[in-house]
Amino acid sequence: MTIKYPNGSLPLYNERQKKQTNVAKQKKSFANRGMRFEEAINESNEYYLNRGCAVIHKKPTPLQIVKVDYPKRSAAVIKEAYFKEASTTDYNGVYQGYYIDFEAKETKNKNSFPLKNLHAHQIEHMKKCLSHRGICFVLLWFSSLNRCFFIDSHYIVHYWEQQATKKKSLSLATIEEIGIEIIPGVAPRIPYLQAVDQFIELKEQTSCQTIHEHSVMNHQKRKQ
Amino acid sequence: MTIKYPNGSLPLYNERQKKQTNVAKQKKSFANRGMRFEEAINESNEYYLNRGCAVIHKKPTPLQIVKVDYPKRSAAVIKEAYFKEASTTDYNGVYQGYYIDFEAKETKNKNSFPLKNLHAHQIEHMKKCLSHRGICFVLLWFSSLNRCFFIDSHYIVHYWEQQATKKKSLSLATIEEIGIEIIPGVAPRIPYLQAVDQFIELKEQTSCQTIHEHSVMNHQKRKQ
Repeated sequence: MTIKYPNGSLPLYNERQKKQTNVAKQKKSFANRGMRFEEAINESNEYYLNRGCAVIHKKPTPLQIVKVDYPKRSAAVIKEAYFKEASTTDYNGVYQGYYIDFEAKETKNKNSFPLKNLHAHQIEHMKKCLSHRGICFVLLWFSSLNRCFFIDSHYIVHYWEQQATKKKSLSLATIEEIGIEIIPGVAPRIPYLQAVDQFIELKEQTSCQTIHEHSVMNHQKRKQ
Repeated sequence: MTIKYPNGSLPLYNERQKKQTNVAKQKKSFANRGMRFEEAINESNEYYLNRGCAVIHKKPTPLQIVKVDYPKRSAAVIKEAYFKEASTTDYNGVYQGYYIDFEAKETKNKNSFPLKNLHAHQIEHMKKCLSHRGICFVLLWFSSLNRCFFIDSHYIVHYWEQQATKKKSLSLATIEEIGIEIIPGVAPRIPYLQAVDQFIELKEQTSCQTIHEHSVMNHQKRKQ
């Protein structure tokens, strides 16, 4: 994700301005406000971390540092650096012994999520994490609809790889079918671990079913 | 880890110089050469990633970006930024369904590892990851001895918390006892997943033993 500050610099708030901004933030939803979805996830991660629910962090933005100054008696100042494209997804960590890895994506569209919002290297990363039994997903925010979905990366990879021959976006109807909807709240703002719980439960049921089916098959084989 | 480039900028090599440097690198070990241990780990991670063994990455250095320029028709340039202290360890990822989290540390000492090389927030992070059943450790490089150890973070946390009352460093003898030695190689240069395998095996044996002990105890109780 590339950070774009319109006026070329980060605003420096004083404490009072900060409070006012926070109040304004709380009043409005984070729809159509750029970084708001990411902020909501970061806040949710902090909430989960402080309560001992999970250890999930956003990775720092990767930068190519070119020039650093070392003024005497003060901290090193980076004078020239460039944004680099990340080779992984934005978030990872650990939850109940599971490796968690996800990307947060936002769209203003009302009917579909364009797959071009994901990059080839992110898909590659997801495939690798899945092959190592990580729980890997996309948190998708429809900013015009105020709706949030958990989508298992198995689906994302599947649809991404069909892109050349089939549709270039996931319809809302498909997302409603394959995803788990997350209802935004207050604390945490994006309670995505609820969706992860549902996903783990479903996964375990499926693997239990598979084990059960196998044992039934073996039983029938033995009977024959 | 704070990156310090002595002359304030990253050297720009041409291809020939690069080759010469690489040859020089290969001839020498990475002892006493600053970033070399970190580089050896990064190369090992790449090796593991390319061979589908594990997905483990170094997190980018966290920076506080203050000023960004957007020259017309070219990439955004960061004009002012500062190094921030990381709130987590340097490396994490997934291996055989396990969450892996570690910190790489180097010392020139020959007889001990000073615990002050670790920060309170890193210890906190390790404790949290351990409580969520992550595999968490320190890769320790004795640059004067050319010896590398895997140390389970349970020990690190234990000794760190005893620091106030007891010793402020781990002796090499203790490290030899509690750690798993990793013999540096060519590909990968730091074959630390071998130590992780040993650790997992030991852990499973211990938990099997515990389960066995429990079942023996329960059996004896039932008999009484």
